[in-house]
Amino acid sequence: MKFKLEANDTGSKARAGVVTTDHGDIQTPIFMPVGTAGSVKAVHQRELKEDIKAQIILGNTYHLYLRPGLDIIERAGGLHKFNGWDRPILTDSGGYQVYSLADTRKIKEEGVTFQSHIDGSRHNFTPEYVMDIQRTIGADIMMAFDECTPYPCEYDYAKNSMHMTHRWLKRCCDHFDKTEGKYGYDQTLFPIVQGSVYKDLRVQSAEMIASFGREGNAIGGLSVGEPAEMMYEMTDLVCDILPKDKPRYLMGVGTPANILECIALGVDMFDCVMPTRNARNGMLFTSEGIINIKNKKWEDDFSPIDSNLGGYVDTFYSKAYLRHLIMSKEILGAQIASIHNLSFYLWLVGEAREQIKNGTFADWKNRMVTKVSQRL
Amino acid sequence: MKFKLEANDTGSKARAGVVTTDHGDIQTPIFMPVGTAGSVKAVHQRELKEDIKAQIILGNTYHLYLRPGLDIIERAGGLHKFNGWDRPILTDSGGYQVYSLADTRKIKEEGVTFQSHIDGSRHNFTPEYVMDIQRTIGADIMMAFDECTPYPCEYDYAKNSMHMTHRWLKRCCDHFDKTEGKYGYDQTLFPIVQGSVYKDLRVQSAEMIASFGREGNAIGGLSVGEPAEMMYEMTDLVCDILPKDKPRYLMGVGTPANILECIALGVDMFDCVMPTRNARNGMLFTSEGIINIKNKKWEDDFSPIDSNLGGYVDTFYSKAYLRHLIMSKEILGAQIASIHNLSFYLWLVGEAREQIKNGTFADWKNRMVTKVSQRL
Ligand SMILES: [Zn+2]
Ligand SMILES: [Zn+2]
Repeated sequence: MKFKLEANDTGSKARAGVVTTDHGDIQTPIFMPVGTAGSVKAVHQRELKEDIKAQIILGNTYHLYLRPGLDIIERAGGLHKFNGWDRPILTDSGGYQVYSLADTRKIKEEGVTFQSHIDGSRHNFTPEYVMDIQRTIGADIMMAFDECTPYPCEYDYAKNSMHMTHRWLKRCCDHFDKTEGKYGYDQTLFPIVQGSVYKDLRVQSAEMIASFGREGNAIGGLSVGEPAEMMYEMTDLVCDILPKDKPRYLMGVGTPANILECIALGVDMFDCVMPTRNARNGMLFTSEGIINIKNKKWEDDFSPIDSNLGGYVDTFYSKAYLRHLIMSKEILGAQIASIHNLSFYLWLVGEAREQIKNGTFADWKNRMVTKVSQRL
Repeated sequence: MKFKLEANDTGSKARAGVVTTDHGDIQTPIFMPVGTAGSVKAVHQRELKEDIKAQIILGNTYHLYLRPGLDIIERAGGLHKFNGWDRPILTDSGGYQVYSLADTRKIKEEGVTFQSHIDGSRHNFTPEYVMDIQRTIGADIMMAFDECTPYPCEYDYAKNSMHMTHRWLKRCCDHFDKTEGKYGYDQTLFPIVQGSVYKDLRVQSAEMIASFGREGNAIGGLSVGEPAEMMYEMTDLVCDILPKDKPRYLMGVGTPANILECIALGVDMFDCVMPTRNARNGMLFTSEGIINIKNKKWEDDFSPIDSNLGGYVDTFYSKAYLRHLIMSKEILGAQIASIHNLSFYLWLVGEAREQIKNGTFADWKNRMVTKVSQRL
């Protein structure tokens, strides 16, 4: 993996760059749609490419490990071959889902034991094993195994957990560095900054993570319920410490406004389930603001969902039709809304990139944050 | 509407023809995907056209009347404008759903009163009102309001019901003929043969329906649980009576084998929820036979779903990936399986048409019926 910084915004810490992987380039800042179980929910692979213009998608290690399982993925030739997505893939470490979905989980220094939420079967994730799993899935970008602390979190718990995450990172790096990819292309490993909402811990963790000298770095443990201002403060602090010449990935963030604000702080990569999860529930993010399509006011609005976007769903379908589908629980409603929301997120980061290259990002960002946050 | 008979098979009663409507031509024999509430479930409109190659779709009057309702459809400019499907649409009369879905329905000579299955609201369908509703929906082909008798059905009930359907048909025709389309294109009305599984009633009904001299004719009340042989017997009997120079539509049929057998008896048009409903449950119809994709044998089969079909889902996705999606209840599984099954149905009737034109249908049909009925 390579990262080339192309432009720094003059009025903020925003940057534009290009991440190069063996599955192609990623133009940053970028939003990565979440493909939980090897599928971005309700979206065909060709729609991801041609309509949404996704450049990289996520896979969830926990889900893929449990189903279809490593044996099937390996026999397919890796996740790219299995699901047909031939652009870059990033996998999380599985930690977040182990903590949030699995049953009877137990965290020890060695690793985490848990029961599958699907069939109750017992499993054990260690930093080393999680590297092996992501090697087998074949992600272009793999994530270190960490503990993502909840919010709120006691200082002592956050501190101890952070140090364990650091020790786990050492084990991840050692194991990663002595193993190889299985499918002939390069994989890279991103470490994750933790430290909850405590400034001193975040500083310590960012310095520790930076010292590992990996090809990219991530910020975890945010967007877990803390106020947005606190999230921005931690992100700002950490971005200032993480090296400038490597991409910075803020995990699990967020709303369109969150993303714009964090781009301004120097974040390059984002992922979040919000655009797809909220889509299925009828919540649309548009360039003019937020639409709850279930609201009766849209029932006879035959205009496009977002006339500033040019793709298929925004030129072909009307708000009234989409409302009807969502109210009727028709699958096509989830499909249209998911493509729309993801198209909007990709449009938004693409616009941000242009503004950064023009040196006009800061003003534009302030105007857009107001716009995209309002409820229509 | 016009119908041009192009070819008669030499070894069977199968025919090939072209139905011409103001929204384009339909090459028969044809299968019509069911778009219950203005959407063929899990399928985008452009996929219907480009991948499935659907030439006409169905809408359900009962569903569309309740939601989004006539006011919204009329303000949109009809269903074609509302859902963006610009090829022909056929609507059923709503009768079937009133009998199967609605609550506390009461059938009288005047019409049917019922409660909505959505909100319990009270409604009244008469033959005249059902014509008005379909005028407002804007179907190219409208269906007469009938009573679809269940199976089994007592002879006396079937006989009395049939005569009421005939009287309702007279009211439908009178009302249809003195009203006009609302959107500037032609609409036509198909009457429906009833008579349950009683030969004398089917003969009487077919003669009565033929005597109305409408532009096309339908056969209802079959595929409601009776043995396939009985369905074929009734269809054969009725097809021999219905005029040769008008399209014959067998409602709600059926499996690929059912469709091939009934094409051989002279049926031109089919609809059925089976390809989409079964798709969502992981049952695939292919040119080699029936696949239950949930079966473990497919978990590592990385071959296409059906290599004889050339469309997107059959060249892009593997059986193993589709199995994983269906097992994981991922929406994309329903999407892929629905496109596949409908593509196969349209491929099958297209092949049948070619065989009819070549005069080779009968032999081909016998080979295909065996093939498409076997479980893989
Ligand atoms: Zn430490
Ligand atoms: Zn009669």
